[in-house]
Amino acid sequence: MFTVTIEPRFGDADGLGHINNIVLAMWFETGRNGVFRIFNPVMNLDPAAWNLILAHADYDYLDQMFLYPEVEIRTWIEKIGVTSFTIYHEAWQEGRLCAKGHVVAVHYDFVRHESTPLPEDKRKLLAEHLLPATDRQ
Amino acid sequence: MFTVTIEPRFGDADGLGHINNIVLAMWFETGRNGVFRIFNPVMNLDPAAWNLILAHADYDYLDQMFLYPEVEIRTWIEKIGVTSFTIYHEAWQEGRLCAKGHVVAVHYDFVRHESTPLPEDKRKLLAEHLLPATDRQ
Amino acid sequence: MFTVTIEPRFGDADGLGHINNIVLAMWFETGRNGVFRIFNPVMNLDPAAWNLILAHADYDYLDQMFLYPEVEIRTWIEKIGVTSFTIYHEAWQEGRLCAKGHVVAVHYDFVRHESTPLPEDKRKLLAEHLLPATDRQ
Amino acid sequence: MFTVTIEPRFGDADGLGHINNIVLAMWFETGRNGVFRIFNPVMNLDPAAWNLILAHADYDYLDQMFLYPEVEIRTWIEKIGVTSFTIYHEAWQEGRLCAKGHVVAVHYDFVRHESTPLPEDKRKLLAEHLLPATDRQ
Repeated sequence: MFTVTIEPRFGDADGLGHINNIVLAMWFETGRNGVFRIFNPVMNLDPAAWNLILAHADYDYLDQMFLYPEVEIRTWIEKIGVTSFTIYHEAWQEGRLCAKGHVVAVHYDFVRHESTPLPEDKRKLLAEHLLPATDRQ
Repeated sequence: MFTVTIEPRFGDADGLGHINNIVLAMWFETGRNGVFRIFNPVMNLDPAAWNLILAHADYDYLDQMFLYPEVEIRTWIEKIGVTSFTIYHEAWQEGRLCAKGHVVAVHYDFVRHESTPLPEDKRKLLAEHLLPATDRQ
Repeated sequence: MFTVTIEPRFGDADGLGHINNIVLAMWFETGRNGVFRIFNPVMNLDPAAWNLILAHADYDYLDQMFLYPEVEIRTWIEKIGVTSFTIYHEAWQEGRLCAKGHVVAVHYDFVRHESTPLPEDKRKLLAEHLLPATDRQ
Repeated sequence: MFTVTIEPRFGDADGLGHINNIVLAMWFETGRNGVFRIFNPVMNLDPAAWNLILAHADYDYLDQMFLYPEVEIRTWIEKIGVTSFTIYHEAWQEGRLCAKGHVVAVHYDFVRHESTPLPEDKRKLLAEHLLPATDRQ
């Protein structure tokens, strides 16, 4: 599991005083940094170095989130395929599971413009963060 | 169908030069304005006036989008339930369908904090924008 | 003068129901598209093609803006220097001037990593959008 | 001084691979949380509780920022007036001062829609974070 703690900013609340649905997507993206760094330790954006692309994202909004207190984003690997893998995220505030979601990331060669198989060493590093069946919410 | 035309801004491109996945979520939210105005013509954010809340969102990224030229967001109603309905969005750039997705919106009373049935007049207005089976991508 | 019309999205309002200060910065960036296209007609982000970098931005928040109705961003060139120029923006909603601000853009070579003089043809195109003294708010 | 550490997210980089100018504004807003909590410890957005509004913001972009490593936002109070005060922010990455800026916040009554004098107890708490003359960059 990867964990990041988010301190909401004033503008993250929408007109009803709740965290806007799109802000959650930003927080999950921050939560993916640990996954990105498996592939690219210093977040090098050169097309010859960066090699992940998003194919799908989904979000379930379970409970309202507020500006205070801080929010914890928990991130696991849910499934590892040949050229892609699925990431699972949860957002927790004050002991409440407020949102969850998935992202499908494709291992992609930005120079050749095609997906490529996940190398074995990366598969092993991803597997260290697999979601245990018992932890699923 | 509701249509809005989006002019990307410089910061909407990510480090690989493509529109960031979260920017698409913002554009779809803009695309929902026509739906919101069925319920709330002047976008009044008073909890006694606003009555929609998001329960789910999903996005499929089909092709890369760029800063230029402009993007068209097309929005339909896909399904109308008792207290909720499903919105379907597409993003088009230069004749290419680049992304699609759904949002489930719940008719919600922010004063009583509970979902409430969709009134008949709103159901009729939503039904005018139903996605024809033949238009589905 | 360059003009763009902005349709606010739901999440652009902050917890007090007003447009968040940072959203204005995004709208001004969209307002700069006309300026960017003088230098780069198709918004090509290749470091050999893109040649503007921001050195400064300021914003004065004069009146509250709301989710409805649409907002007009007006953009002029205020001053043209040797390697940089100043852009002036205004945001109008329902006949009210709600915000104004400036940005200093530097003509920059992203390959050599240094500022370079503004070419004469670009200076002429910028000069066509100079802010008339009588228009200043 | 208030300090927050920011972990950039993938989409914070623009098409040239640098942190977008507007992302900096978001980070400075997060940096203001310590100031906001002097006035409103749990970030209560009720118009009878929230009492700060932004009148001005400016940003100087001194050096490029990247997705990695983390960024430190340092925040001080620069000046305390009768109904308003000035906040000063700096962004540091790897020992480099990359950006600085100011915000003028007005003590505002959102129910009566007018600015009101800063109470003495808040002035004292703000004064504990005054920028020492020797620290100015």
